[in-house]
Amino acid sequence: MPISDEIPVALGLDFGTESVRAVLIDGRGQELGVASERYRHGQIVDHLPGNDQPLPARYALQAPGDWIDSAADATRAALKQSGITADRIVGVGVDFTSCTMLPTLVDGTPLCNLDRFASTPLAWPKLWKHHGAIDQTERMNQVARQRDEAFLKRYGGIIGLEWFFPKMLETIELAPEVADAAEVWLEAGDWFVWQLVGGDAKSLPRSTCQAGYKALWSANEGYASEDYLRAVDQKLGDAAVNKMPGRMLSPGERAGNLCESMAQRLGLPSGIAVSAATIDAHSGVPGVGEAEAGTLVMVMGTSSCHMLNAKQFQSVPGIAGVVEGGILPGLYGYETGQAAVGDAFAWLLKLLNLDSFGPLAEQAMKIPAGSDGVLCLDWMNGCRTPLMDGSVKGAFTGLSLETTPAHLYRSLLEASAFGVRWIVDVLREGGIPVERFVATGGLPHHNPAVVQIYADVLASEIEVHPSEQGPAVGAAVLGMFAAGSDASGFETIGEAARAMASVAETDRLIVKPNLDDRETYDHVYRQYRELADQTVALKTADGPS
Amino acid sequence: MPISDEIPVALGLDFGTESVRAVLIDGRGQELGVASERYRHGQIVDHLPGNDQPLPARYALQAPGDWIDSAADATRAALKQSGITADRIVGVGVDFTSCTMLPTLVDGTPLCNLDRFASTPLAWPKLWKHHGAIDQTERMNQVARQRDEAFLKRYGGIIGLEWFFPKMLETIELAPEVADAAEVWLEAGDWFVWQLVGGDAKSLPRSTCQAGYKALWSANEGYASEDYLRAVDQKLGDAAVNKMPGRMLSPGERAGNLCESMAQRLGLPSGIAVSAATIDAHSGVPGVGEAEAGTLVMVMGTSSCHMLNAKQFQSVPGIAGVVEGGILPGLYGYETGQAAVGDAFAWLLKLLNLDSFGPLAEQAMKIPAGSDGVLCLDWMNGCRTPLMDGSVKGAFTGLSLETTPAHLYRSLLEASAFGVRWIVDVLREGGIPVERFVATGGLPHHNPAVVQIYADVLASEIEVHPSEQGPAVGAAVLGMFAAGSDASGFETIGEAARAMASVAETDRLIVKPNLDDRETYDHVYRQYRELADQTVALKTADGPS
Repeated sequence: MPISDEIPVALGLDFGTESVRAVLIDGRGQELGVASERYRHGQIVDHLPGNDQPLPARYALQAPGDWIDSAADATRAALKQSGITADRIVGVGVDFTSCTMLPTLVDGTPLCNLDRFASTPLAWPKLWKHHGAIDQTERMNQVARQRDEAFLKRYGGIIGLEWFFPKMLETIELAPEVADAAEVWLEAGDWFVWQLVGGDAKSLPRSTCQAGYKALWSANEGYASEDYLRAVDQKLGDAAVNKMPGRMLSPGERAGNLCESMAQRLGLPSGIAVSAATIDAHSGVPGVGEAEAGTLVMVMGTSSCHMLNAKQFQSVPGIAGVVEGGILPGLYGYETGQAAVGDAFAWLLKLLNLDSFGPLAEQAMKIPAGSDGVLCLDWMNGCRTPLMDGSVKGAFTGLSLETTPAHLYRSLLEASAFGVRWIVDVLREGGIPVERFVATGGLPHHNPAVVQIYADVLASEIEVHPSEQGPAVGAAVLGMFAAGSDASGFETIGEAARAMASVAETDRLIVKPNLDDRETYDHVYRQYRELADQTVALKTADGPS
Repeated sequence: MPISDEIPVALGLDFGTESVRAVLIDGRGQELGVASERYRHGQIVDHLPGNDQPLPARYALQAPGDWIDSAADATRAALKQSGITADRIVGVGVDFTSCTMLPTLVDGTPLCNLDRFASTPLAWPKLWKHHGAIDQTERMNQVARQRDEAFLKRYGGIIGLEWFFPKMLETIELAPEVADAAEVWLEAGDWFVWQLVGGDAKSLPRSTCQAGYKALWSANEGYASEDYLRAVDQKLGDAAVNKMPGRMLSPGERAGNLCESMAQRLGLPSGIAVSAATIDAHSGVPGVGEAEAGTLVMVMGTSSCHMLNAKQFQSVPGIAGVVEGGILPGLYGYETGQAAVGDAFAWLLKLLNLDSFGPLAEQAMKIPAGSDGVLCLDWMNGCRTPLMDGSVKGAFTGLSLETTPAHLYRSLLEASAFGVRWIVDVLREGGIPVERFVATGGLPHHNPAVVQIYADVLASEIEVHPSEQGPAVGAAVLGMFAAGSDASGFETIGEAARAMASVAETDRLIVKPNLDDRETYDHVYRQYRELADQTVALKTADGPS
């Protein structure tokens, strides 16, 4: 507990795909204020702001100014809602989508903010889901396999299409003028924290979480070796050595103090502690008060990340990454994920020309398990775990003239659940215990049907964390911890997480599985795996088209 | 040419899935009147008339009263439109969907018209697309293969789910009280002709075309042997021997003269010639004036039948049937088909919650050949040629968050075209020449995009027959021929077909293929075949579910 009479408060800023959320939470877990603000330009997928030129398919960009504008508005709104005075706030934590990354000048100015690059798509921040680097990813994997790079075993054997170096290489190859002008390459989360604390590029605070999961970095070995990067592309090696300055800091470590100018923008006292950034999904683990091994924290949103702490390191084929202390200190953090969850539901709704899920969900839940034989493969944005392949595609099979929109929706829900089951199988077969399930993120609250079907398919209870702000609360936990024990009263992040984010036993929302359909789901899950195998086989047989 | 001064006229009645069409056409091919009337109860798929009980999935029934009511209204409307006096009409021809069949009393009363059976679904006529006999079909195929029945080679090795004996067996097994009460089993087309000409059951006119393609009948061997039918089910053998009375007549042969009561219903002179029935699709061949070998006549509607006359008999695996003189005398008639064409388009439109194809088709035609990687398998109502399997299902693959409704529609159009290409491959590989393509039926006129894509995928010209009434005209040709040469002036059906239905060279509507996309379509067609193989493999691996 804090030494002052007033309980200290931390601000969590959770930068999602469409909006940023600000939450103010005190050291006893009281949520004092929460506000969310959409980014003015949202996801930039059709054309750049003020530019009619259509963007290539698979591009997804963002505008850095949006992050600051929306964060300022959301923070001020949350503060107003809370009714507290800003001087009770002792720390700020930041979580961010990842790998969302950008090139800047040495003073932090994003290249896209320069007039000469305003119309160059690859000068803009690439959002995590930007899939422009298919060729580059393939090449990086090829060279890594040829050289038998040791880092591969930390990433299930595969470098992801959405990661840092493929995105960097894409720009080096396709927009060399941008790559030449870049002085610093960094994660958007690190960029935002840098803006908060100021200082020069040499000491800019970089998150070990983002570097560990998305940039082939580990505490022992640093980034992927210069040799390897040069073997892929000379300029990639050069850029990694010369254009990635900074200090590596774990989430919860103090990156610095809030600088005057950003304090004014956000309406906060200058000088308060700022934590190093973390990845939004990973923030969900402290955000639901989880500090133990064995709990799969399912952060469900546009896409889903499923995070697991374990005591042991295992090289598990197909996982997105394992980073020592990547989620919480002292444990190995395993990241797995599904590339399209909320995004796929939204896509289907639009495809079916419907305005809301309400009636569709109601009809879907009346259809028996197995969707009357309609089977979906939920790879509408590629497959993260276990294939780590952004280029594979989704499917609906078992279609007949009796198939209705509700069948498609139910089969998509089921497919999403089968995707989680596959991930659990991969982890367990890899020797990593998975004992409990906690769902967080916006989706479980907006779409309760999905949690029930997940529980049925996993044949396990799922605890739905009552806060819809899981990652934002996690960021606040990190901000609180960064303030130090004198200000916060907490000695460890685990202590802070339990105090600020866990739910009283009596308040827990537990979704129990309906085990009547267990055999049906076992059967349909095997069909799903078979369909996945066939889809990969068809793609492989076919070659690039 | 007729011997009287006035050119004789024939009436063609074309009984489709949703409506009946009446066309009056004279011996020089002048269309004098045409009218179409929907069946009051349409396809009965949800529940029986006046009964709330939902029907099982895959049921599709019809009401016999609808056929008479709608035929009477359509005939009277066509006659009124023509302005001619009814005494110029010398003959009536009837084509009907097949196998649409029913059980009746010995006087022709449909069992469903009896109070005690009004609520028994299996007492009602089963529409061609009724798919209730999956188990029965499997069993009949099994026994036929075990006994190496010779008839199999006329049907590509497979008895179809939609055929006469499986439908009969379904009722024998699932509604024995109906089967016991049945005194006559017959095709709906034969039932209607029987109503037209009257007479007792012993002499009821049965079409060799319907029997040949749908009831395992051939001129040399008659129906499938009693031994075989009894090996499947004792009662099936009994029923075939005792409850299928009648005379076998070829389409165009005179079944009798129009009886007084039906003459009054239809507003026609009694005593005029009535031809034996034919199958609607088969009627499309004389209906487009085709009397030669080597032309694939694609009768495109709810489903599609592709009919081909050839000089040679070949046992072609996967075709629906080959019947000597089944389409026209002196040639072997090969029937192949696609189970869902217009039906699949209508299903997709409803699935996508859209009212009309207009904007969708426009967008779809702007998408490049290959639908940006979206691939469809058009088995939403099973696969007729080459699998003859009503239980396989359709699919969409290659789906991504960029997939739009127009992609689904275009890929369905392409899949339908690949289905035809597969049929052409099967015929040619079986040694049957396919030299020309003629499209008829309603669909080519309502949906010109589909014919263009067919032409592109086949890399061949397609002639679209300008009459939308192909099968109805064919029926009129048969009615004219049945009137005899004294009344009609024609000595052969071929002569009548050419005079009444073919199009002057200068009026021909030829759709030319766009050969730019030929390679793309070759490639995607291979993927389609691969997807078809995978779908069958997944179903086989899985067993019945």
